[in-house]
Amino acid sequence: MVKIDALFKDTSWIGQKVIVKGWVRTFRANRFIALNDGSSLQSLQCVVDFETLEENLLKKINTGAAVAINGKLVESQGKGQSVEIQVEELMVLGEADPDQYPIQPKKHSFEFLREQAHLRVRTNTFGAVMRVRSALAFAVHQFFRTEGFYYVNTPIITGSDAEGAGEMFRVTTLPAQQPPTTAEGNVDYKEDFFGKETNLTVSGQLEAETFALGLGNVYTFGPTFRAENSNTTRHLAEFWMIEPEMAFYDLNDNMDLAEVFIKYVLQYLLEHCDSDLQFLNQRLEQEEKTKPQAERSEMGLVEKIQFVVSNKFQRTSYTEAIEILKNSKPNKKKKFKFPVEEWGIDLQSEHERYLVEKHYKCPVILFDYPAKIKAFYMRLNDDQKTVRAMDILFPGIGEMVGGSQREERLSVLEERMAKQGIDPEELDWYLDLRRFGTAPHSGFGLGFERLVQFSTGMGNIRDVIPFPRTPQNASF
Amino acid sequence: MVKIDALFKDTSWIGQKVIVKGWVRTFRANRFIALNDGSSLQSLQCVVDFETLEENLLKKINTGAAVAINGKLVESQGKGQSVEIQVEELMVLGEADPDQYPIQPKKHSFEFLREQAHLRVRTNTFGAVMRVRSALAFAVHQFFRTEGFYYVNTPIITGSDAEGAGEMFRVTTLPAQQPPTTAEGNVDYKEDFFGKETNLTVSGQLEAETFALGLGNVYTFGPTFRAENSNTTRHLAEFWMIEPEMAFYDLNDNMDLAEVFIKYVLQYLLEHCDSDLQFLNQRLEQEEKTKPQAERSEMGLVEKIQFVVSNKFQRTSYTEAIEILKNSKPNKKKKFKFPVEEWGIDLQSEHERYLVEKHYKCPVILFDYPAKIKAFYMRLNDDQKTVRAMDILFPGIGEMVGGSQREERLSVLEERMAKQGIDPEELDWYLDLRRFGTAPHSGFGLGFERLVQFSTGMGNIRDVIPFPRTPQNASF
Repeated sequence: MVKIDALFKDTSWIGQKVIVKGWVRTFRANRFIALNDGSSLQSLQCVVDFETLEENLLKKINTGAAVAINGKLVESQGKGQSVEIQVEELMVLGEADPDQYPIQPKKHSFEFLREQAHLRVRTNTFGAVMRVRSALAFAVHQFFRTEGFYYVNTPIITGSDAEGAGEMFRVTTLPAQQPPTTAEGNVDYKEDFFGKETNLTVSGQLEAETFALGLGNVYTFGPTFRAENSNTTRHLAEFWMIEPEMAFYDLNDNMDLAEVFIKYVLQYLLEHCDSDLQFLNQRLEQEEKTKPQAERSEMGLVEKIQFVVSNKFQRTSYTEAIEILKNSKPNKKKKFKFPVEEWGIDLQSEHERYLVEKHYKCPVILFDYPAKIKAFYMRLNDDQKTVRAMDILFPGIGEMVGGSQREERLSVLEERMAKQGIDPEELDWYLDLRRFGTAPHSGFGLGFERLVQFSTGMGNIRDVIPFPRTPQNASF
Repeated sequence: MVKIDALFKDTSWIGQKVIVKGWVRTFRANRFIALNDGSSLQSLQCVVDFETLEENLLKKINTGAAVAINGKLVESQGKGQSVEIQVEELMVLGEADPDQYPIQPKKHSFEFLREQAHLRVRTNTFGAVMRVRSALAFAVHQFFRTEGFYYVNTPIITGSDAEGAGEMFRVTTLPAQQPPTTAEGNVDYKEDFFGKETNLTVSGQLEAETFALGLGNVYTFGPTFRAENSNTTRHLAEFWMIEPEMAFYDLNDNMDLAEVFIKYVLQYLLEHCDSDLQFLNQRLEQEEKTKPQAERSEMGLVEKIQFVVSNKFQRTSYTEAIEILKNSKPNKKKKFKFPVEEWGIDLQSEHERYLVEKHYKCPVILFDYPAKIKAFYMRLNDDQKTVRAMDILFPGIGEMVGGSQREERLSVLEERMAKQGIDPEELDWYLDLRRFGTAPHSGFGLGFERLVQFSTGMGNIRDVIPFPRTPQNASF
């Protein structure tokens, strides 16, 4: 058995007898099977001589059927493909009743396909998206491995809820109905599996820091969770995050790494996923045509990826950004839902979009945010007002990366925890990192699905992960 | 800043001024700092001239302190290292009070270090284990990428509990104290985040199958969970699993792939982790010396890895294995806790160990198990008694891999589900794979921590994962 991808790529197969196995995408004129085995976007044309095939067999060659084909690979005479197979033997491994099989060769809405998430990877769009997703994941590992980073699996079930990055899911084996209670009448978590209340992690950062301050440069790449009731095209309750953490890096090193990293993985895609990207590029083009002119993107998908790879990200401090926004046309004309009046406000997505899409027209790294709107572990600047935080904003996506230099000074960290009401007992192990051999260090988090969205041009984040988890939905 | 690893490997650094940053492992005679930055097992000797350093600074150079050093790299005159740094400038970035820092340069028990899991990666043993773990993970991705497999992230939170691979953790946002109830007085999961009862996944296999029957060859590599109250050296409540799933593969193809895969990742280690493996080899040798002669391993760690890489795995059917066990010395002398009397029993770990460690003395693939003791999705053989299952057993580890050819025939699958009391409604999507374009396919699961245990010679599985989760323990 040989993969269809190899037959397209390696001309030495021409003239040889081959066995291919895959699924029928279409069957035209009782003669041309478009066979797809998932190894490439393009299907292989398999030409059958219907006069030699039994009527009964012919009837089973329907869209979705699994078949094994034995034949000779030849250069194709027809248009649209370089090679084709002259079928000598054909076996139907699994039928697909055309009256019942949901994935027929026509346009299906993404909403419909989400309900068929177990079958949607058999379509061109989802096949391409999932191949791109896989290639991106590999590029992530290859980048960090090449750069001397170690992969670290931080825990998924966590006993600490101190990070405060969002609402959490509780993990338990206690009976839901009548859990054991303490003398005071509270739920007795001592009786739970881990002897205490546990949740699904919202971030592996704090644990990754423990590894960075021993192994040097490390990264996580694993699932994280938010129990927020956000039914949007940008949020998932379960998503994959990449979190590098580097000892001895300051915020500038951190920004440099994030930029190099993103460019590396996108460049990898350009080199390894050409036909999938071209297909997704066309798909997006079609979709854009249905939008009003003003909402259309100025660049195509591949052009956008190339643009990011070859242009420097704009670095702007929060303070500068506020000035730009204050003096911007939409602000003066009161077009922002949240007017920008004073330093210290949290930027809304309309503000980020203005900076990225209208003002700079490129990815933007904002840094040195007000301490009050950022997490306790970010390093306080000498001005005592801002912290060494950075966000990378992407056109059409919004926040792609959030990172910071970490507060490595024990007393400053303790003070900030106290201010934010975080129990130092809970994070005693985290404080140990500042007690013993503390050092400047930095890191960032990148939501993998956001990266896949940018790379594929898919508008809804539910369409770039195999089985999306959102409020009221955990099917499959 | 340059990594210590590079200074050891690349002789062109000799004679150059370099900046290194890391943590003091030891400081001898007010003169020799052993500096480690995590990039390699070996520490770099940094020679200070104590007469030029301030007394106050000298006092801060303690085990665990973070320092930045500026100096010239020269060939070392002393024994034990090829190069060393003549220190010109030294800055203490973070102190480590010798009276408080737990990781002193002496032998610590693994039990003690488990309580210091946030600091243990600063020891030679855990540094080596975690570097090996990271290298293995990369080798996994590289193998599958090279072989044309796609990485698929199957869901962690699952609404289906049909696989029955073990006890599950419930995931919920309902109040623990007084959850909403239905009219009948049961907990009303409609009010829960996902609108139904959800759990942490025990395996991504069923979802991976949906992708295999569209993309061809895929694999998962993610966390899985078992809520079993097993306090052993072989079990974790949270562990990482690798699950490839291949369309058009039969059981023999599956066994071939598993064998090639394991050999590839171990070979990768031999080529990329030499010094860590040599260190772990010595550590194990020391540990073995404390055991009674009869319990000692016949091979050293590296020798064992080399043996696995270069020898064919023994393939034996369950039926043959039962015959061997029945006629074995320990069975006849009634030394087995569970005597082997008849075909059909589930093999106990004492039986597996006998086959692997005494009888064959190599990894063993057992296949064609009795249907009754295996999962519903394994393909029924024509004898109607056995299924196309396979387990790979490793010396000292036990089951490393469990896999099977999947039942692709709808009616047979439905029958087996009915027999095992599995609700077909629950798995309707899984049955769809047999309704539409079904095809022979196979896959296996490999517990990543078992592989790391084998590769590092660590006796307790809690010592090969950064932050182990076990009953009553979810620290950090």
